[in-house]
Amino acid sequence: MTTSSPLTLDALNASSAEAFVEALGSVFEHAPWVAEVACKQRPFATVAALHAAMCDAVAKSDDATQMAFLNAHPELGGAAARRSAMAALSVEEQASLGLQALDAELSARFDALNAAYRQRFGFPFILCVRRHTLASIIAQFERRLGHDIAVERGAALLEISHITRLRLDAMVVGGGASKQGWLSTHVLNAATGRPAAGVALELFELDGARFIPRASAITNEDGRTNAPLITHGQLRIGQYELRFDVGAYFAGTLPEDPAFLGIVPIRFGVSDPEAHYHVPLLVSPGAYSTYRGS
Amino acid sequence: MTTSSPLTLDALNASSAEAFVEALGSVFEHAPWVAEVACKQRPFATVAALHAAMCDAVAKSDDATQMAFLNAHPELGGAAARRSAMAALSVEEQASLGLQALDAELSARFDALNAAYRQRFGFPFILCVRRHTLASIIAQFERRLGHDIAVERGAALLEISHITRLRLDAMVVGGGASKQGWLSTHVLNAATGRPAAGVALELFELDGARFIPRASAITNEDGRTNAPLITHGQLRIGQYELRFDVGAYFAGTLPEDPAFLGIVPIRFGVSDPEAHYHVPLLVSPGAYSTYRGS
Amino acid sequence: MTTSSPLTLDALNASSAEAFVEALGSVFEHAPWVAEVACKQRPFATVAALHAAMCDAVAKSDDATQMAFLNAHPELGGAAARRSAMAALSVEEQASLGLQALDAELSARFDALNAAYRQRFGFPFILCVRRHTLASIIAQFERRLGHDIAVERGAALLEISHITRLRLDAMVVGGGASKQGWLSTHVLNAATGRPAAGVALELFELDGARFIPRASAITNEDGRTNAPLITHGQLRIGQYELRFDVGAYFAGTLPEDPAFLGIVPIRFGVSDPEAHYHVPLLVSPGAYSTYRGS
Amino acid sequence: MTTSSPLTLDALNASSAEAFVEALGSVFEHAPWVAEVACKQRPFATVAALHAAMCDAVAKSDDATQMAFLNAHPELGGAAARRSAMAALSVEEQASLGLQALDAELSARFDALNAAYRQRFGFPFILCVRRHTLASIIAQFERRLGHDIAVERGAALLEISHITRLRLDAMVVGGGASKQGWLSTHVLNAATGRPAAGVALELFELDGARFIPRASAITNEDGRTNAPLITHGQLRIGQYELRFDVGAYFAGTLPEDPAFLGIVPIRFGVSDPEAHYHVPLLVSPGAYSTYRGS
Repeated sequence: MTTSSPLTLDALNASSAEAFVEALGSVFEHAPWVAEVACKQRPFATVAALHAAMCDAVAKSDDATQMAFLNAHPELGGAAARRSAMAALSVEEQASLGLQALDAELSARFDALNAAYRQRFGFPFILCVRRHTLASIIAQFERRLGHDIAVERGAALLEISHITRLRLDAMVVGGGASKQGWLSTHVLNAATGRPAAGVALELFELDGARFIPRASAITNEDGRTNAPLITHGQLRIGQYELRFDVGAYFAGTLPEDPAFLGIVPIRFGVSDPEAHYHVPLLVSPGAYSTYRGS
Repeated sequence: MTTSSPLTLDALNASSAEAFVEALGSVFEHAPWVAEVACKQRPFATVAALHAAMCDAVAKSDDATQMAFLNAHPELGGAAARRSAMAALSVEEQASLGLQALDAELSARFDALNAAYRQRFGFPFILCVRRHTLASIIAQFERRLGHDIAVERGAALLEISHITRLRLDAMVVGGGASKQGWLSTHVLNAATGRPAAGVALELFELDGARFIPRASAITNEDGRTNAPLITHGQLRIGQYELRFDVGAYFAGTLPEDPAFLGIVPIRFGVSDPEAHYHVPLLVSPGAYSTYRGS
Repeated sequence: MTTSSPLTLDALNASSAEAFVEALGSVFEHAPWVAEVACKQRPFATVAALHAAMCDAVAKSDDATQMAFLNAHPELGGAAARRSAMAALSVEEQASLGLQALDAELSARFDALNAAYRQRFGFPFILCVRRHTLASIIAQFERRLGHDIAVERGAALLEISHITRLRLDAMVVGGGASKQGWLSTHVLNAATGRPAAGVALELFELDGARFIPRASAITNEDGRTNAPLITHGQLRIGQYELRFDVGAYFAGTLPEDPAFLGIVPIRFGVSDPEAHYHVPLLVSPGAYSTYRGS
Repeated sequence: MTTSSPLTLDALNASSAEAFVEALGSVFEHAPWVAEVACKQRPFATVAALHAAMCDAVAKSDDATQMAFLNAHPELGGAAARRSAMAALSVEEQASLGLQALDAELSARFDALNAAYRQRFGFPFILCVRRHTLASIIAQFERRLGHDIAVERGAALLEISHITRLRLDAMVVGGGASKQGWLSTHVLNAATGRPAAGVALELFELDGARFIPRASAITNEDGRTNAPLITHGQLRIGQYELRFDVGAYFAGTLPEDPAFLGIVPIRFGVSDPEAHYHVPLLVSPGAYSTYRGS
């Protein structure tokens, strides 16, 4: 069982304890003992069951062990991130949001938040980066600073559960069965009840007052985009805005100048990055509606 | 009949021709002859009929007279505006948009547009400023530069008709019977079918990529604002955005963080400043719709 | 103070106790003592205050008095109704729904319900007929038969409060300030954002599977009806259906045969006959929406 | 090449002319010559190309041949239908709507329409029964009686094209590639932006004032029905009503009695039985909307 070939549950269930721990020892940050404890529960019928056993090992560990475990996690976007003094998997995850290369202002902000958090709770701020946008990380950071310590330790363990589930899913064949969020849209011409083809649209991520372009597309004959706006597994907690060029689509339909509808913005939040968000636009020249669909 | 007391149609119908022309000679820019011609059609049953007679005088004037008349109009936002070399009524109208005090970049842009326009058509660009926002003036300016001269002369006369109707309405008692546009909204909580009270909202005017705050309000018990967002007679051609703080209104309704709906922006164009635009928001935590109402 | 001239609060406040009781003694069914008790609380600033004082007199009366009072009410739609052995005001109220002239099947149904009710609670079923449709009376009747006696006595007193408020409002000048429900609609052509003029519509009241025509109208230039579909004070608890002839309105817009939308039915319940129900239709050839507005 | 095994295009392209005509001679009613003419155009790349060649043979035939061909078609729902004096395929098609067993009133109506039609045009009324409901057949019948003869002959040939395409699709492997219409719905709880599970719904076909039950279902966790309301290939031109039991779904959400929304009916027409009609309900306790989706 080498790391170069895909892991299977069957192989994990059948392997020696040493090989099991070698394969999964890095899933929980600097804590191969988690794999050691879980190993005794074999065989596992599903990756979910394996993951549950590992989380359970952490939850049932004594207080000191748990605090040491939490403390072995890197800070987010702080000095450690910049020094890359992190486990390899964390490096990759933090890099996905550019947390290792923040500008001076954001670095200072993360440093201040990290310091305040560690002083208050005695362990570093932990969050499943892959589920978040930069703006939602900062929002979470500030909110969680207000927690009681017991609530916050639970929040930290929940985030570790998210992190390690994603890691297991990526490592073990069949692990991808966990839900993967994505974002789609479609445009209906409500004046005719037909799909609206040829509508140009853009997706932005909101970071405070900034709108960061994330995708653009033109609707096809079915009023949909040929690919999801955010593909499976890439959806992140945050705020977004879709902008539809309705003015161009209906150009010439009515004599008004300017038209009642030009660019139609739809702003929405994503709280569940494992869900499918379908945010459509039903539009006629004088009215429109949208909803959270699935 | 002095200018200090309100003019009435009865007085205008009964006065001497000299008094009639003295009273209305300034309505058409530097063209008291328009009042002289219209004077012969007395009596007028309505201000609309009086206005129609004056416009007719211009339309039926010979080519040279009409060109001289058009040429007596001031440029918009250009050197003349800055020098205030305009009839008193025009000064006031242009000032309402700050056209006499543009910054250097906009001044240069208007100068260039004015020069191109005059070279192409042989008369200055004329537009009823009171019906427009700054952004829509520039949009119109650029579009009208592409016209044929015959079409454009018609466009100029139509704008003069708008300008002079507003002037007459302001001068003559009973003239306000012409339609006055305004903007209103209301918010309905579609989850309950009840007015949504306490929703904070803001109105912005769009100037390219800039959003200029124009009004803000909080909905009352009836889901409406205590006063129109733009009061009667103050609506202008242009593009606007309403932003409703739906997130605060529904806070605590659903556990999502962030909520699906936070700030809901509705962007729309006004093409008819004499109309009532009612732009409502029908909203529940998971969906919303809007329409051009009246 | 004679009954032929309109009563005013001032006159009631200033009159002798005898005249007060003579004027208001019939408001509570066969119970002039209610007026006698309330008389001592004079003066009353509003009709609402007068009404509250009268209701309070009933609520504070001893058990035997209250039961006798309840028992003095006529049965609904039963033998008493058919014999007209009721106080004059009750006769008029029951007649407004045809309860004195039910067909044999309904008479039998009311007789059975009345008997079951009286046996269970020891007093007749009381309900403010003016707030109800025939169907909602029967629905209420059956539901209230399942109540505990304490709950049901409260329900009976609440209905008497409704009945007597309407009676006072009708008798005393200024009493009409209490809320009067009504029903309106409007039709918006969502394809253009303009009022839909010329749309034929009908209103039905639902009685089980029967649809009883109640009103019909054609929308005016403002997309509204010239008069409310149910005028102020005439709205009743029940279920209704509006039917809009959208097919005729959009005829020729799209080539489909049959059109996607022909007759559009909107079915809704009225639970609060003192409220304004505004049930609009926002419609384009391929979509529509409605909501409970106000 | 026997009729018991499935026909393939390859086999038809490779067979003798006799076998080709034997296989396809019955597709056009009593007109094997159509197959004979088309046979000469072999090979055909698709069933659509084969069908086009056969229709072309009819279109290019001389007037007398064409009239004879039209006259070889059975009357709809008339005496011939009742006597079953029809080609086998027609018998099956007419039976799908019960046209061979109409009640006395409808039989008389069809007889009268058939007589009027034949007198006016000199050939029987032809219509692709599989695309229609009984109500839409009668509506078409009456409308087509008003045609000019040239227009009507075109209409008859278009219907024959529909009939024969369906026959070929059923006979030749790979023919099912032609579009098959179906009907689906879904219910969204707009108050939460989540699928509405457990909503009971019924589908009716409208026949004048009658509502004929066609399907019923309860929405699943995804707010959809487990099977289409009308499955692929079974959709027919006509008018339909969906009824959603929204009152039961939202029971207990709001205190109103009756609720604003109980049974929500959505009535719509199907004009294109080869299309997918998706008619959803987006609903909260105080509002709803629908649209023709796909």
